[in-house]
Amino acid sequence: MPSNPSRPPSPGPSAPGTVRPGGRTARTRAAVRDAVLSGLVEHGYPGLTVEYVADHSGVHKTTLYRRWGSVEGLVADALDLAGEDSWTPPDTGTLGGDLHALAQEVVDTFGDPAAGAAPAAFIAAAFQSEQAADALRGFYAERFGRCAPLVERAVTRGELPAGTDPGALARAVSAPLFFRLFITREPLDGAAAGQAADAALAAARAGVFASAT
Amino acid sequence: MPSNPSRPPSPGPSAPGTVRPGGRTARTRAAVRDAVLSGLVEHGYPGLTVEYVADHSGVHKTTLYRRWGSVEGLVADALDLAGEDSWTPPDTGTLGGDLHALAQEVVDTFGDPAAGAAPAAFIAAAFQSEQAADALRGFYAERFGRCAPLVERAVTRGELPAGTDPGALARAVSAPLFFRLFITREPLDGAAAGQAADAALAAARAGVFASAT
Repeated sequence: MPSNPSRPPSPGPSAPGTVRPGGRTARTRAAVRDAVLSGLVEHGYPGLTVEYVADHSGVHKTTLYRRWGSVEGLVADALDLAGEDSWTPPDTGTLGGDLHALAQEVVDTFGDPAAGAAPAAFIAAAFQSEQAADALRGFYAERFGRCAPLVERAVTRGELPAGTDPGALARAVSAPLFFRLFITREPLDGAAAGQAADAALAAARAGVFASAT
Repeated sequence: MPSNPSRPPSPGPSAPGTVRPGGRTARTRAAVRDAVLSGLVEHGYPGLTVEYVADHSGVHKTTLYRRWGSVEGLVADALDLAGEDSWTPPDTGTLGGDLHALAQEVVDTFGDPAAGAAPAAFIAAAFQSEQAADALRGFYAERFGRCAPLVERAVTRGELPAGTDPGALARAVSAPLFFRLFITREPLDGAAAGQAADAALAAARAGVFASAT
């Protein structure tokens, strides 16, 4: 099992402007990402090989080694790419509505085998690769950081104390659901989502996530 | 990877009274459990073999296959055995104190490499074995069920609404900590423990975990 936590050289063009955005390099990177995902879902991290990614992406093994370094680099870059989507937090008009929608998104993602397989595979890979764990940490930090406008709106509406940490609130909504999914291995349903949102809401209103606490 | 979710024949004596409690069978089971734990910690679930367990427990491979069926059965039984300890929830005199102590126990366990390696290895194994996932579900359900007296005391002291679900409250304290450890891969410290306890406390006081909600 490789355990070197250093990141591989950044994939993509070595000098800005040498390949246009969305061009051949971007297509190659996406094809490699797709192959990594299907390999993770099919075989898990322990069974994923550079050979598999080469076979399923049409990208030569030599190129994969040169640009991504190893299976660890391939997985970390697939996660980085997953973080480049345009997701924004729900905006329902109330804090309670937003948190319930946020919790329901988690339930919907993992209730759909096609949508849930890749994140589950990344979470599993992080148990065996420091580099995947680093990439996962970066992915979630960026993702939860996007919840700042949700909290700003709630503070403006007088629903939350000023200084509430958006990341802490977003983590509080998600944590009980991921805990059931990947730690206690309990079923996830709308009731669990509702309770997670209500608990986070009560804690946030009580000022638990405000910087003064 | 074996994926048969059926449980192996129960280990231990085939008829009650054939072997005294704490006798040779119990010692064998404990030796096998210790070998399973060290194998999981050393090699992870993908690298754990019946051969390794035989070598490290001194129990013959044929016996292991006959009584535990497979690596999956060995892991599931080691988890069952882990659930037979005498752990009871903290009793500090206040609900807040109890929840803070509960959260701190999680931080202390996973902050100690010797204590944290085995639970982390079980959680990782559940990604690859349905039988380990079933055993983990059973372990946590039993463990969180032990928190009933903690909630009863708080209800008696007037700190919590009657009908508060002990399992839901205990899960709420633990979830943010396991989420940081195994999903977002963020560091765990006393501040995270305090926030997890305070958030669960605020939600419980608001009645989020009471059956009427």
